[in-house]
Amino acid sequence: MQLQRPYLLFLGDVPDALAAKTAYGIVDWRRDWCVGQWRLPGCGADTGLPDVSVAEAIEAGAKTLVIGVVNAGGVLPAHWVSSIVEAMEAGMDVAAGLHSRLDSVPEIAAAAKAHGRALHDVRMSTQTFATGKGVKRTGKRLLTIGTDCSVGKKYTALALEAGMREAGMDAEFCATGQTGVFISGRGVAIDAVVADFIAGAAEWLTPETDENTWQVVEGQGSLFHPSFAGVTLGLLHGSQPDAFVVCHEPTRTNMRGVKTPLPTIQDVIDMTIALGKLNNPAIKPVGIAINTQALSEADAKAVIEDTGKAHGLPATDPVRFGVDPIVQRIKADFS
Amino acid sequence: MQLQRPYLLFLGDVPDALAAKTAYGIVDWRRDWCVGQWRLPGCGADTGLPDVSVAEAIEAGAKTLVIGVVNAGGVLPAHWVSSIVEAMEAGMDVAAGLHSRLDSVPEIAAAAKAHGRALHDVRMSTQTFATGKGVKRTGKRLLTIGTDCSVGKKYTALALEAGMREAGMDAEFCATGQTGVFISGRGVAIDAVVADFIAGAAEWLTPETDENTWQVVEGQGSLFHPSFAGVTLGLLHGSQPDAFVVCHEPTRTNMRGVKTPLPTIQDVIDMTIALGKLNNPAIKPVGIAINTQALSEADAKAVIEDTGKAHGLPATDPVRFGVDPIVQRIKADFS
Repeated sequence: MQLQRPYLLFLGDVPDALAAKTAYGIVDWRRDWCVGQWRLPGCGADTGLPDVSVAEAIEAGAKTLVIGVVNAGGVLPAHWVSSIVEAMEAGMDVAAGLHSRLDSVPEIAAAAKAHGRALHDVRMSTQTFATGKGVKRTGKRLLTIGTDCSVGKKYTALALEAGMREAGMDAEFCATGQTGVFISGRGVAIDAVVADFIAGAAEWLTPETDENTWQVVEGQGSLFHPSFAGVTLGLLHGSQPDAFVVCHEPTRTNMRGVKTPLPTIQDVIDMTIALGKLNNPAIKPVGIAINTQALSEADAKAVIEDTGKAHGLPATDPVRFGVDPIVQRIKADFS
Repeated sequence: MQLQRPYLLFLGDVPDALAAKTAYGIVDWRRDWCVGQWRLPGCGADTGLPDVSVAEAIEAGAKTLVIGVVNAGGVLPAHWVSSIVEAMEAGMDVAAGLHSRLDSVPEIAAAAKAHGRALHDVRMSTQTFATGKGVKRTGKRLLTIGTDCSVGKKYTALALEAGMREAGMDAEFCATGQTGVFISGRGVAIDAVVADFIAGAAEWLTPETDENTWQVVEGQGSLFHPSFAGVTLGLLHGSQPDAFVVCHEPTRTNMRGVKTPLPTIQDVIDMTIALGKLNNPAIKPVGIAINTQALSEADAKAVIEDTGKAHGLPATDPVRFGVDPIVQRIKADFS
């Protein structure tokens, strides 16, 4: 899948920033691929990009309308369809990461055909995978693991890729979700794979490589989330990480979208090792990434220091304070 | 999905009984739904049903040709197509549990249309599911859990359903695989569900029910299998079992199809509780089902006795010695 750039990011009328996290992620990591954002009345999200019309976006060279939102169930709201058709009429392809296919909406399928536009469903892999084999592969792998969904696993992986490269290491981000695929241009939306092939898709994503190359894999879900733990386990088994970083949001009390309480960081470390050692007996934690956006700077520093000490691991907020402590630990542990 | 009965079981030319385990399962549990078997030259499987021609099957009232085999990759061999078309021409619907859709074969799709026959892809759920919620539901649930794939989880669940009913309990088998769906007429092939919805599909399969009704859920895979553990975990979370039975094949050393060694029964008990308590803190083991078909009767009895004593649980081979010890334990623990 190769998306034509630059992008126009469509936010629709989603209620808040979290529902538009795909768009925010693209802006954070590939801002210069985006000509602007397109919001409908009532939209509660704002990526900070200029608000542009379809005509202005085309003028600025936009090639693809990216539906930069995730909504519950992944269904495309009916009142967005005319906007999407308008973008195609003006000259853009459309890319989305919804659970339903773009071409399952008759108006969209018809407009794509009439105007010769491409429809990219990032979550719908047309690719087939083998089942997982569990055989140890050469190269090094790091997986970001969450105490919950939406705690910063993708950001942490992207920040680690950048930080490790700055430190002279060979690192490549491996995308497992729609935003990651938009950002890296490669990858697999692992939660959209048929259940039998989760681990196999993760093995495809992280093939044999040079002994000193790090594949930095974007984690998904949580081993303790009642909706998605199966995806998390298949990804853990398939990516057979040597190292993992626990990602945590300290103000959250319930797992996102359900009533299940959050596990502790220690629960997550212990369970990740217990399950991950099946395919990599040497699996070990190398850091804790704490999403402190809800905290003051003083509180953030205190939580980070306390958490790091309590677990004997480097802790940081990758967005606020960078990933250097974790990169140094990786260098020290795997030199 | 409602399959018209009786069935004609198609075995093709599969090399051995294991490749035809779907057909054997149907014969074991629903023999009077079957008019006979249809084998091609070179077939190494034999369910013991009479070999009948298509004409004889129709004469006996056959309504559905069941492709009763699983082959590597789940692909339909090209040289079976003319037989399937012949059955449709004679008046039968076709049901299969392959990875590829029956109507993806042009000759089969054309014959179905020309003759007005139904094509049932048991592994391809056209149903959509919600994501798992993890909320405790009324009623009681039992899940069969394997040390490996293909160790007798479906047989154990079906034998428990029968044994619990004989003991005056209200029990219903819940199918999670293609053979189980053929046997029960309801269910979901859970390994064919999109990864995000494994737990949600398991919740759909085991809805709220009377407090004293037992849903006896067919397990899948193993928490320790590098190909399929994600499916197993999603099923464990979604079915939120009160009780589980560990299924084991004592002569196996490697997990089926891979080089990973088998876990111990204690490993499986501990990990099932550690993960299953997320949605049901009271989860507990109630027995061990040992597949002793490779052992002499004396050896089988010795293994069963030793294993039961070592774990403080009733142990049996459901096929060889029945499930009564486990049923009695369930009655005692949940009265």
